[in-house]
Amino acid sequence: MIKTGIIGGSGYTAGELLRLLQNHPKTTVDFVYSTTNAGKPVAKVHQDLLGDTDLLFTDTINPEVNLVFLCLGHGQSKAFLEKHHFASHTRIIDLGNDFRLHPDAGSFVYGLPELNRKKIKMTQFVANPGCFATAIQLALVPLAQHQELQNSIHINATTGSTGAGVQPSGTTHHSWRTNNMSHYKAFEHQHLDEIQQSLDKLQPGFNQELLFIPNRGDFSRGIFATLYTQTEKSLDAIVALYKTFYQNDPFVVVTTDTIHLKQVVQTNKCIISLEKKGKYLLITSIIDNLIKGASGQAIQNMNLMFGLDEKTGLQLKSGSF
Amino acid sequence: MIKTGIIGGSGYTAGELLRLLQNHPKTTVDFVYSTTNAGKPVAKVHQDLLGDTDLLFTDTINPEVNLVFLCLGHGQSKAFLEKHHFASHTRIIDLGNDFRLHPDAGSFVYGLPELNRKKIKMTQFVANPGCFATAIQLALVPLAQHQELQNSIHINATTGSTGAGVQPSGTTHHSWRTNNMSHYKAFEHQHLDEIQQSLDKLQPGFNQELLFIPNRGDFSRGIFATLYTQTEKSLDAIVALYKTFYQNDPFVVVTTDTIHLKQVVQTNKCIISLEKKGKYLLITSIIDNLIKGASGQAIQNMNLMFGLDEKTGLQLKSGSF
Amino acid sequence: MIKTGIIGGSGYTAGELLRLLQNHPKTTVDFVYSTTNAGKPVAKVHQDLLGDTDLLFTDTINPEVNLVFLCLGHGQSKAFLEKHHFASHTRIIDLGNDFRLHPDAGSFVYGLPELNRKKIKMTQFVANPGCFATAIQLALVPLAQHQELQNSIHINATTGSTGAGVQPSGTTHHSWRTNNMSHYKAFEHQHLDEIQQSLDKLQPGFNQELLFIPNRGDFSRGIFATLYTQTEKSLDAIVALYKTFYQNDPFVVVTTDTIHLKQVVQTNKCIISLEKKGKYLLITSIIDNLIKGASGQAIQNMNLMFGLDEKTGLQLKSGSF
Amino acid sequence: MIKTGIIGGSGYTAGELLRLLQNHPKTTVDFVYSTTNAGKPVAKVHQDLLGDTDLLFTDTINPEVNLVFLCLGHGQSKAFLEKHHFASHTRIIDLGNDFRLHPDAGSFVYGLPELNRKKIKMTQFVANPGCFATAIQLALVPLAQHQELQNSIHINATTGSTGAGVQPSGTTHHSWRTNNMSHYKAFEHQHLDEIQQSLDKLQPGFNQELLFIPNRGDFSRGIFATLYTQTEKSLDAIVALYKTFYQNDPFVVVTTDTIHLKQVVQTNKCIISLEKKGKYLLITSIIDNLIKGASGQAIQNMNLMFGLDEKTGLQLKSGSF
Repeated sequence: MIKTGIIGGSGYTAGELLRLLQNHPKTTVDFVYSTTNAGKPVAKVHQDLLGDTDLLFTDTINPEVNLVFLCLGHGQSKAFLEKHHFASHTRIIDLGNDFRLHPDAGSFVYGLPELNRKKIKMTQFVANPGCFATAIQLALVPLAQHQELQNSIHINATTGSTGAGVQPSGTTHHSWRTNNMSHYKAFEHQHLDEIQQSLDKLQPGFNQELLFIPNRGDFSRGIFATLYTQTEKSLDAIVALYKTFYQNDPFVVVTTDTIHLKQVVQTNKCIISLEKKGKYLLITSIIDNLIKGASGQAIQNMNLMFGLDEKTGLQLKSGSF
Repeated sequence: MIKTGIIGGSGYTAGELLRLLQNHPKTTVDFVYSTTNAGKPVAKVHQDLLGDTDLLFTDTINPEVNLVFLCLGHGQSKAFLEKHHFASHTRIIDLGNDFRLHPDAGSFVYGLPELNRKKIKMTQFVANPGCFATAIQLALVPLAQHQELQNSIHINATTGSTGAGVQPSGTTHHSWRTNNMSHYKAFEHQHLDEIQQSLDKLQPGFNQELLFIPNRGDFSRGIFATLYTQTEKSLDAIVALYKTFYQNDPFVVVTTDTIHLKQVVQTNKCIISLEKKGKYLLITSIIDNLIKGASGQAIQNMNLMFGLDEKTGLQLKSGSF
Repeated sequence: MIKTGIIGGSGYTAGELLRLLQNHPKTTVDFVYSTTNAGKPVAKVHQDLLGDTDLLFTDTINPEVNLVFLCLGHGQSKAFLEKHHFASHTRIIDLGNDFRLHPDAGSFVYGLPELNRKKIKMTQFVANPGCFATAIQLALVPLAQHQELQNSIHINATTGSTGAGVQPSGTTHHSWRTNNMSHYKAFEHQHLDEIQQSLDKLQPGFNQELLFIPNRGDFSRGIFATLYTQTEKSLDAIVALYKTFYQNDPFVVVTTDTIHLKQVVQTNKCIISLEKKGKYLLITSIIDNLIKGASGQAIQNMNLMFGLDEKTGLQLKSGSF
Repeated sequence: MIKTGIIGGSGYTAGELLRLLQNHPKTTVDFVYSTTNAGKPVAKVHQDLLGDTDLLFTDTINPEVNLVFLCLGHGQSKAFLEKHHFASHTRIIDLGNDFRLHPDAGSFVYGLPELNRKKIKMTQFVANPGCFATAIQLALVPLAQHQELQNSIHINATTGSTGAGVQPSGTTHHSWRTNNMSHYKAFEHQHLDEIQQSLDKLQPGFNQELLFIPNRGDFSRGIFATLYTQTEKSLDAIVALYKTFYQNDPFVVVTTDTIHLKQVVQTNKCIISLEKKGKYLLITSIIDNLIKGASGQAIQNMNLMFGLDEKTGLQLKSGSF
């Protein structure tokens, strides 16, 4: 059994990891570190785990675990690792953004399995991608691999309120958020950097505009992204290209059907729908922001790092309704 | 024109008062007092008022206004009035709970117009009822007036997230609240005291159990209350009794149709539906918690205190969808 | 008093008209025509009107009314007017799409007051704009007037479920729609034609791409639209241009604040927010699809046609929460 | 492997069965019968299964399967079984209400495992309980077993829109249902009969009133039920009694914590919270109406009928947010 520890145990991604890990046949959760909740039962915070676990939060780490998940706020992972030391064999998956971008990444591999599966299998350290970054990259990397990103890329994506984290605020107050919609950080979202970095790796010299408007949606889970760009390739050719690219990726589904967000909510799937409208290729990409966009992808990376079947513990019933 | 001031201007009830007052033909808002937002445009906090008002929050009161609305947290009105003094002619409507219950009420009249219209017309000080208390009392007072509350009363009511106030918290976080339901303060909600007091006044010696379960609903506005009690009276007799009781009340509608919450949301109406099931009378009572349950009722009280038509400024389009 | 009749009385836009007309001081509703509901109380279908109106649906028109609102399905207004005849003085406002486009429009004026106020004041027949078309045109016409639409225009807009009409279907089933998001008719929405026509009128020869993705949102009311295009003008210059264009339009607010959909829900307002990001101008435009996008705009047109203050009956409390 | 067939394959319970069965390690789905969708891919109707299954709907049954799930409308199972014949070894689980009540039940065992586990293990035919009936019975059977139901029982329960089935209607239209609340069949819901039957079996001569108000909630999944009745037993004694009763039931959790609906949504769990308020015992019972209230419970029954671990295929990640 893989012994795991979770750092930053009271947030949404930690809760989702706990839910996934408790049904994962090859892992145990050794400790859940939370300075604010130390001593408290985990099920008092992640209340749906009532009856499923007797774990208590702790403020002591076990440095000998096989794997540590870092679920700290963005920018706090590096500081945490400077203060706390793990065994030389301990693997680390960081769900924050500290190690996603070079040169800060150091020895961390960018954990998008569909892009870096081989490297993830060999590495000790993984930087788990951002949620928007996951949905957007999966929509674009097959084109980049074929040097087909030759025009501006227009992206509009809407995320659920869990994307904003567990800390309550004005824009996550239910009275404000329900029945509402807004955008934020238009053209300037921090995930653009990791997207850019991946595209550049596949299509060296990539310098097209990525025009991205992120929206706050009126739902708690999921990312619904539409992207379009000009291309001369036919729809058939593009579909073939995507299907080939993703032929060995168990969580990515390529389709020409129209799709809707709830097809993937509560799963680790990404569904990509392709349409051609005149010279424009329209790509719709949907994921669950907490699963494929965070904790599920972390488990997927763990599976790869430990030589397990990539799907272990991730065959999840969709939420559907 | 009635010159009004609002104390505690950044909360939900203050916002709703501002929305209602700006379309009220007989009032002006002289000042909106908020220590935390002093100097800031009101439309920066109540953002739907953008383009409608240039008012700034202030930390200075004008003691000469004709009417002051107190929109402070519960328990803070008394302290505020001890520190700040208004002119001897200034009328006061307190939306908090400081003056609802005797003997604390002092010279404040309990502001449920359907019960105390005459006294409200004559008084200088009104204690505006609580939101649950409004929905529940309007469902019961016709029976109390006829001494017909002779058995236990079973009450279940669900409120929207605005009922919890603007301050964000765990149970108003959108990710938690959406698609969720829970109850709180079962059998012990503080509004039971004001309900008890009113029923006792109409039906002296009233001592039946009021068994009340308040729920947190997955919507932002409205209270949906069901009540039942045993009675030997026929449905026809009861309907007649309610229709007579409310014959001069422009905001209360009595029906035997089945009803649903959104019939009253965004209005000052209370719809009461009556059914008889065997020996049980089932009463459904619906209001908008921020309007008839708070700010709308405050305007209604203001209209009465100043000799205006009770409906002035309160003929509101329902939200419906 | 203006005597009005409503044709197609059981749908959402008819219901919203009835809600607005009952608080309009200068109109009476003479009849509400619905073949399927004839004889039934209007408040049995538009149930929030319970206690407000005793009107019955009828299958007989009064051809002598001053104004008829056509709330039929798209494509049915022309057929209706061929079968039914009104007095020579009767004015007509069509909420469908039969008369929006030339040459079908005939003597109908396109009823976007901010564009055609003078013509609307003089005409007997108005074609009320589509909801998406309203939000999008108000975002673009100031630029078109100055011949500033010189590049592709990228539009993403999300509408509430009332936009799909009262007839239940798979994509308006609550279980499907709640917490969901999807797009439809990407790049091909029928409202593009009326938008094109208006832009072409203001900026003759306008031939830029209008790339429009319409989304189905997880709320019942409202349209949240973002648009961007390249321009060399500074933000200050653009804001000045918009403020000048809309200086006499009581329902359009121009701002540089960030905005969110619920600022306009339940009102006849359109708020337009302007940002400049590098060479791109980002325009956010929000309306209530049933009010400024349909029935409220119809009342606004009526007010203009009858020489009333444009705001009569349209000073509505926003829904806010 | 257990070969299963599903009759009535296009509804919500069939969809949920398919989602559960595809991750169940001991079953295969042999056919999905739907006369209206025959020939169509299952994933065109249950669209979240895209990429997971290539099954087509069929209008031909395979009478040799090991198990048939009947997911027909209420009242249609009997007629279906009269027309279609299965092998003598084929087991049947009916998710409708045709065989729940004696004497209609015939050789069907009432499939509430916590009540009838032994009988379910031995039977060929199971009548799966109703969703409300599941939540309510699990809240009451420990008391009934101890003859402790000696007073009126007051029940208020709210269900999600999936409870109304996939067929669209006025009260499942998103525009109507969202932000709304209503009740239906107060005191007369059909599930009262099966509840009564179970309680009577455990507490012979049970004749207390079951006063039940079912509500339509503003969410798609889940049942939130509160029940109270008078009892002289202490809370400790009652908690002990419930914990003993459910000690071998893997899906029922007994607690004195306050609970909220989303703790169980997307799982097969039922959480029961107990409080004592004066002489009243307040029981809160929560389930997912489509899982523990329908398809999950059917799988649980299948597991028992085939000698599998009861939890097989039912260790589901909760939805949580």
